[in-house]
Amino acid sequence: MFKPIEEKDATSKVKEIFDEIKEARQITEIPNFWKTMANSPETLERTWRSLQQVMGKGELDPAVKELIYVAVSITNNCEYCIKSHSLAARKKGATDAMINEMIAIVGMANETNRLVEGYQVEVDDFLK
Amino acid sequence: MFKPIEEKDATSKVKEIFDEIKEARQITEIPNFWKTMANSPETLERTWRSLQQVMGKGELDPAVKELIYVAVSITNNCEYCIKSHSLAARKKGATDAMINEMIAIVGMANETNRLVEGYQVEVDDFLK
Amino acid sequence: MFKPIEEKDATSKVKEIFDEIKEARQITEIPNFWKTMANSPETLERTWRSLQQVMGKGELDPAVKELIYVAVSITNNCEYCIKSHSLAARKKGATDAMINEMIAIVGMANETNRLVEGYQVEVDDFLK
Amino acid sequence: MFKPIEEKDATSKVKEIFDEIKEARQITEIPNFWKTMANSPETLERTWRSLQQVMGKGELDPAVKELIYVAVSITNNCEYCIKSHSLAARKKGATDAMINEMIAIVGMANETNRLVEGYQVEVDDFLK
Amino acid sequence: MFKPIEEKDATSKVKEIFDEIKEARQITEIPNFWKTMANSPETLERTWRSLQQVMGKGELDPAVKELIYVAVSITNNCEYCIKSHSLAARKKGATDAMINEMIAIVGMANETNRLVEGYQVEVDDFLK
Amino acid sequence: MFKPIEEKDATSKVKEIFDEIKEARQITEIPNFWKTMANSPETLERTWRSLQQVMGKGELDPAVKELIYVAVSITNNCEYCIKSHSLAARKKGATDAMINEMIAIVGMANETNRLVEGYQVEVDDFLK
Repeated sequence: MFKPIEEKDATSKVKEIFDEIKEARQITEIPNFWKTMANSPETLERTWRSLQQVMGKGELDPAVKELIYVAVSITNNCEYCIKSHSLAARKKGATDAMINEMIAIVGMANETNRLVEGYQVEVDDFLK
Repeated sequence: MFKPIEEKDATSKVKEIFDEIKEARQITEIPNFWKTMANSPETLERTWRSLQQVMGKGELDPAVKELIYVAVSITNNCEYCIKSHSLAARKKGATDAMINEMIAIVGMANETNRLVEGYQVEVDDFLK
Repeated sequence: MFKPIEEKDATSKVKEIFDEIKEARQITEIPNFWKTMANSPETLERTWRSLQQVMGKGELDPAVKELIYVAVSITNNCEYCIKSHSLAARKKGATDAMINEMIAIVGMANETNRLVEGYQVEVDDFLK
Repeated sequence: MFKPIEEKDATSKVKEIFDEIKEARQITEIPNFWKTMANSPETLERTWRSLQQVMGKGELDPAVKELIYVAVSITNNCEYCIKSHSLAARKKGATDAMINEMIAIVGMANETNRLVEGYQVEVDDFLK
Repeated sequence: MFKPIEEKDATSKVKEIFDEIKEARQITEIPNFWKTMANSPETLERTWRSLQQVMGKGELDPAVKELIYVAVSITNNCEYCIKSHSLAARKKGATDAMINEMIAIVGMANETNRLVEGYQVEVDDFLK
Repeated sequence: MFKPIEEKDATSKVKEIFDEIKEARQITEIPNFWKTMANSPETLERTWRSLQQVMGKGELDPAVKELIYVAVSITNNCEYCIKSHSLAARKKGATDAMINEMIAIVGMANETNRLVEGYQVEVDDFLK
């Protein structure tokens, strides 16, 4: 399997993205997500730029954006993503109460998503 | 398969929940989700009461709660749930811009959830 | 995309499996699942023989086996499989009450599966 | 992330549910699932009461109910849920042979669910 | 819900991407995927550029790239994606035999993925 | 839970399959996948024979077949399967560049699968 690429071993293209990440995130150590993805410099760059765009300033509150990210990651069972985006959500202002509410919604949505399938509920005309 | 249970054919227990739903949601016609789930009055009642609690007043904005619901439903591929909770989100104030941002986050989260798996990224110490 | 292969157009290998299916299931018309999968005679044969083994007589009641099949199919959102195995469950003795209970369990399991992820619950020592 | 809440640190509402769980399950130590979910007393209470209803006495055998729970949890990849509900299934009478059969069905259902998608099989008229 | 945006109603940014798509794909009519995503010009542009990079010339055969795309889409149950990328695979040289083999692999992988979970198989030392 | 069955404790049926695996794979030690599944000799035999057929010589390159297997396993989050089939892919000729490309496709496919759901894109006529 691929190993994380340390900063000192990074090629110039990778080093450049690493520097951007450290600057934008105000951190001194690159997280494993980026270090491991650096095995594909193209994927590293594309994913970093895409995330900058998608998670950047918009209509939704930054903490809310992170909570939506966590909600999807819980549904997909991604431990790394749950942990990293929960931390990001807290840094951007999400409280324990908000995270508890988000988890409860994720639970109920997963339940009713399956109840709809189980009962093969037909889409109402007013929803079409 | 189970068929929707119309109001006129509902037993008293089911009729009672139907009346609560119409009152709480200010609607005159019961959606298919509830009518079909009425084949199990216990599931109908439990799901209705649970949703009232989970989606009720809390720390998160009501529109945000619905957007989280939609984000999970997109990830799970539930057409009915996407359509009904998107409509609910709009009624509670979500704009086109917010929904577009939410969908973009859902897309990116699904992508990076799998990149983490693909590269078998190890959880950083600062996340533990 | 692949089209269903009608009995009259089937090669001898496919025809042989079709005949086995009609004999075993006591039916006169091959369902679309088998007719479409017949585009790959190897997959048709292997899947038919595997299902015969897995769904055949064992320790679990035949209706229970079908209910487990439906539970997985609901979780995976497979309309065809939900419908065909619900019908099979009924033919083998599953009642409305049993199906309603199964659906309720599927809903709760999907909910608590995600709650466990959301709260990142650690496995207890007594479960290891 | 949230930490498990020990019994000695529990608020009265949480303590009450913990006592109910110990009484109903005839155990002396609360499992991590409940201790961690206790970070949201409302979710703890609602989930406990819902599970009591859904997994309580009904038409399906108690061991069968647990096997259905495990089948969904395998499909969703939830280690904690697989382990805890497998144990529950055994306590309620499920044998090794039954668990082996359930796992085989889960495997085949996951396979055929995808074959149906892969071949885009159309729903037969007799299933509608 | 969002409606497809027709070329004649497209803003200049969207029109520019539409033109790129028509040029690159050698088509005269924009597919619904792009027309509907055009409700978010940023998502349209980012997705188009990302797909160009990911599906462009590389070490893997173009038809193989499309088959991998279809394999994921089958596992995720995305009808639109299965149909559009199956067509792309065929245009790039995939034969019926190759598609049948791919579907068989998707089925088996989904089965064994769950068998691994069901039996909670531990990772061998030689795989670490 | 089930424990791996060591070769010295295997029944004759299991021993026979173990010997076939060692012969076919040119290995001296049985991996945990097979040892644990040996708790159900029928499932062991059926899965082994099915995999032999599905992953055997065909139209697709053996390394490509393994890459498709890994792509599905990433989407399903199966660590064991990702690791074992990545190793198999490398043994059959897959390079780092090919694996990086496959992972990038898996990421994009998971993203666009959800964008299609999020925007509820209708299937174009030319795809039907």
